[in-house]
Amino acid sequence: MDQFTFYAPTYFAFGKDSEQKTGELVKRFGGHKVLLHFGGGSIKRTGVYAKVKASLDAAGIDMVELGGVQPNPRSGLIYQGIDLCRQEKVDMILAVGGGSVIDSAKAIAAGVLYDGDFWDYFSKGKRVEKALKIGTVLTLAAAGSEGSPDTVVTHEDGQYKKGAGGEALRPSFSVLNPEFTVTLPPYQTACGLTDIMAHVCERYFTNTKHVETTDRMCEGILKAIQVEGPKVIADPQDYDARANIMWAGMVAHNNICGVGREQDWSTHVMEHELSAHNDVAHGAGLAVMMPAWMQYVMKHDIMRFAQFAVRVWDCDMDFSDPERTAQAGINRFRQFLASIGMPGSLTDIGIGAGDIPKIMSHLNLGDGHTLGRFVQLNAQDVQSIYELALNA
Amino acid sequence: MDQFTFYAPTYFAFGKDSEQKTGELVKRFGGHKVLLHFGGGSIKRTGVYAKVKASLDAAGIDMVELGGVQPNPRSGLIYQGIDLCRQEKVDMILAVGGGSVIDSAKAIAAGVLYDGDFWDYFSKGKRVEKALKIGTVLTLAAAGSEGSPDTVVTHEDGQYKKGAGGEALRPSFSVLNPEFTVTLPPYQTACGLTDIMAHVCERYFTNTKHVETTDRMCEGILKAIQVEGPKVIADPQDYDARANIMWAGMVAHNNICGVGREQDWSTHVMEHELSAHNDVAHGAGLAVMMPAWMQYVMKHDIMRFAQFAVRVWDCDMDFSDPERTAQAGINRFRQFLASIGMPGSLTDIGIGAGDIPKIMSHLNLGDGHTLGRFVQLNAQDVQSIYELALNA
Repeated sequence: MDQFTFYAPTYFAFGKDSEQKTGELVKRFGGHKVLLHFGGGSIKRTGVYAKVKASLDAAGIDMVELGGVQPNPRSGLIYQGIDLCRQEKVDMILAVGGGSVIDSAKAIAAGVLYDGDFWDYFSKGKRVEKALKIGTVLTLAAAGSEGSPDTVVTHEDGQYKKGAGGEALRPSFSVLNPEFTVTLPPYQTACGLTDIMAHVCERYFTNTKHVETTDRMCEGILKAIQVEGPKVIADPQDYDARANIMWAGMVAHNNICGVGREQDWSTHVMEHELSAHNDVAHGAGLAVMMPAWMQYVMKHDIMRFAQFAVRVWDCDMDFSDPERTAQAGINRFRQFLASIGMPGSLTDIGIGAGDIPKIMSHLNLGDGHTLGRFVQLNAQDVQSIYELALNA
Repeated sequence: MDQFTFYAPTYFAFGKDSEQKTGELVKRFGGHKVLLHFGGGSIKRTGVYAKVKASLDAAGIDMVELGGVQPNPRSGLIYQGIDLCRQEKVDMILAVGGGSVIDSAKAIAAGVLYDGDFWDYFSKGKRVEKALKIGTVLTLAAAGSEGSPDTVVTHEDGQYKKGAGGEALRPSFSVLNPEFTVTLPPYQTACGLTDIMAHVCERYFTNTKHVETTDRMCEGILKAIQVEGPKVIADPQDYDARANIMWAGMVAHNNICGVGREQDWSTHVMEHELSAHNDVAHGAGLAVMMPAWMQYVMKHDIMRFAQFAVRVWDCDMDFSDPERTAQAGINRFRQFLASIGMPGSLTDIGIGAGDIPKIMSHLNLGDGHTLGRFVQLNAQDVQSIYELALNA
C-alpha cells in the first residue's frame, strides 16, 4: 500500500426531495449568486429545474442561467460561461445535470479565477488550485463527478478531449435524488453503469501489492452494480436500485476505494478518442475498450485477473490453470455488458479499421510516451488494443 | 434505502512519514496554538512525540501539553483540558494516540466553546454544533474516531460511559502512519480488529431493505479484516497488513458504508457498561457481547444472518435450512474472534452472574425504554443477552 492523501469534503444530501435543500446548501457554502448550468433542457421537461429554482428562490439566492451543455462538453460554452460569470459577478456554479454538465461547470469555475486560457489546465496538466465554488444537483448516475476533483472536456479546436483536476474542483455539495434518474432510458442508464464499473476497474488493476481493503471495496461496488444494474434496465422506475447505483457511482470515483495504489486510466484515455471524434457515448466507448484492454494486458498479472473473475464474477478458480479463470472473468464481464445492452466492438459503434490511424495520430504516442500504469502501453500496444476491439 | 446526508471533510495524510505534515496541516486548518493531548506517555517511548513536536516546531506552531488520557477516557482530565485551553487561548486540539485520546480531545474541543457543563452533550444527547478544531495523529487502528463525528467518554461521577456527536467533532485532519501501530501488542491489536468489525456490524444488521451497495462495502471491510487481521497477530511488524487495517478502521466508522439505513448500536451500549465499570478493553467487551447479541436476535431476520454467513464467512448456503447457515456464520465469527485471542464470555473477562443486576440498573431500561433498532430490546431482552454471554 502506497502513501496517499485523501480529502473529500463534499456534502451529500441524498434521497427523495433532497433538492429542496439546494438553496440552503448554496448559502451554507458561501454562495450568493449562482450560475445555474444545465444541458439540453430536459431538466425543464422533467420538473427538476422548477424544483431547484423554487429552492433557490426560497433561500433568496440570485441566479443567472446557462444551458446547452452537450454530452462530451465543449470549450465554446465554457468560454461563454466564464465571461458570463465575470460580468455577472457569480460566486458559485450550480450544475444541474449529469457528468457533462458538472464537468463543464468545473471548467468554468476554474477558468473564472484564472488569468490565462482555462484550457491550460487541460493541455498542460496544471493542477487547479483555485476555482469558484461548485454545487451539483445530479440527474444521472455515471461519471462520479459529483464527488470527484476531476473534469473532462473537449476543445472544439482539434476535438481534443482531455481531463484536468485539483482539490478546488471537488463540489462543495451535491444533491443526489435518485428519483431524478428514473427518467433515463435504458441505453443511457447502461452507459452510466459501464462508466461506474470502469472507474472501479481503472483503480482495481494495479501493480501495487497489499491493497486488500480497497480491493474488497472495489469488488463490493462492482458486485452491487452487477446486482442492481439489471434491475433498472428491466424497470427504469425501480427507485431502490436507482438509489444503490447512485451511491455506487459516487463511491466508485471519489477515490475512497482507490487510495494507496497506482491506478491505470489508459482505457479512459483510449475511449476519449472515440467520444471526442465520433460522439460515441462515453460509457458505450468504455464497454468496447475495457474488455479489449483486459484481454491485451491479462498476461501481465494472471492472478489479479483471476481474483477479479472469482471475487466479482463468481467464476470457479481453476487452480491447475489460473489463466482459464482469468479469461472466464473477462468473458463474463463482456457478457454482463452485452446483457445490459452495451456494444461489444468498435464496429458496433460505427468505427472501422480506417479510423484507427486518425485516432492514433491524435493520441500522439511517439517519443517513448506511453499510456497507463498497470502496463505501460506504447503506440504499438495501443494500436493492437484498438484492433482487438474492432470485431471483438 | 433511506434519505441521508453525508459530510466527511477530514483530510487524511496516510503512510510512512506522514506525521511530518502535522505542522503544515495544523496551519492549513487554521491552528496557531494547539493543545497536544496524549495518553500514558508511550508516544514518548516510541518516538512519535518527538516526530510530531519537530513538525509543529518547523511550522512555528505554539503548543501546550496535556497527557494522561486513560483507556475509556475520564471526565476529570477533560475538565482540566477545557480549563487549560481557555487559559492558554488554544485554538486547536491535536490528539496523538488512539481512540481514547481522540475522544477525550473531542470532548475538550466541545467543552471549550460551551457555556455549561460539557457533560450535557453526553447526558442530554445534545448535538455538538460548535467545537475547537481537532487534528489527530493516530497510533492505533480501532475506534475510527479519526474520521468520525462521535466521541465516547466516561464520567467519573457514577462511571457513566456515554457518547456524543455532531459534525463539529469530525477532525479537520488525521495523520495515519501505519508504522506507529506496529508497536501495539497482539491483544490490543485484536481488540482494535474487533472494534472495527463491530462498527461494521452495528451498521450491517438493519431493517432497511435495498442497501446492496453499502452491504457490499460492509462485507468487503469485514473480509479485509478477516484476511489482514491474523497477519498482524502473527507478525505485529507487518506494515502492509497494518496499513490495510488502519484504512479499514477509518472507512468502517466514517459512515460511508452505513448511510441510508437504520443502524443498531445496542451492542456498543451493552459493552459500555462492561468497560465503564470493570475496565475491560472495549474490543474485548465487544468480542463477548456481539456474538451473544447475534445469537439472541438471529431469528428476527434469518436471511440477513445467512447473507452475513455466506458473503463474509464463506459458509455454504443451506437452501433447505437457512437457519443452519445463519448459525454457522455466527459460529465462524466466534471462532475468528477466538483465533485472534479475544475472550468468548463474560466469565473470561471476570464478570459473573452477580454483576448483571448492577449493570442492568445502570442501563436504566425501565418505562418502555429500549436499546437498539434491528430489534428493540427491552430490559428482559438485554438481561437475557448478558446471561447468554456469561458462559458462551
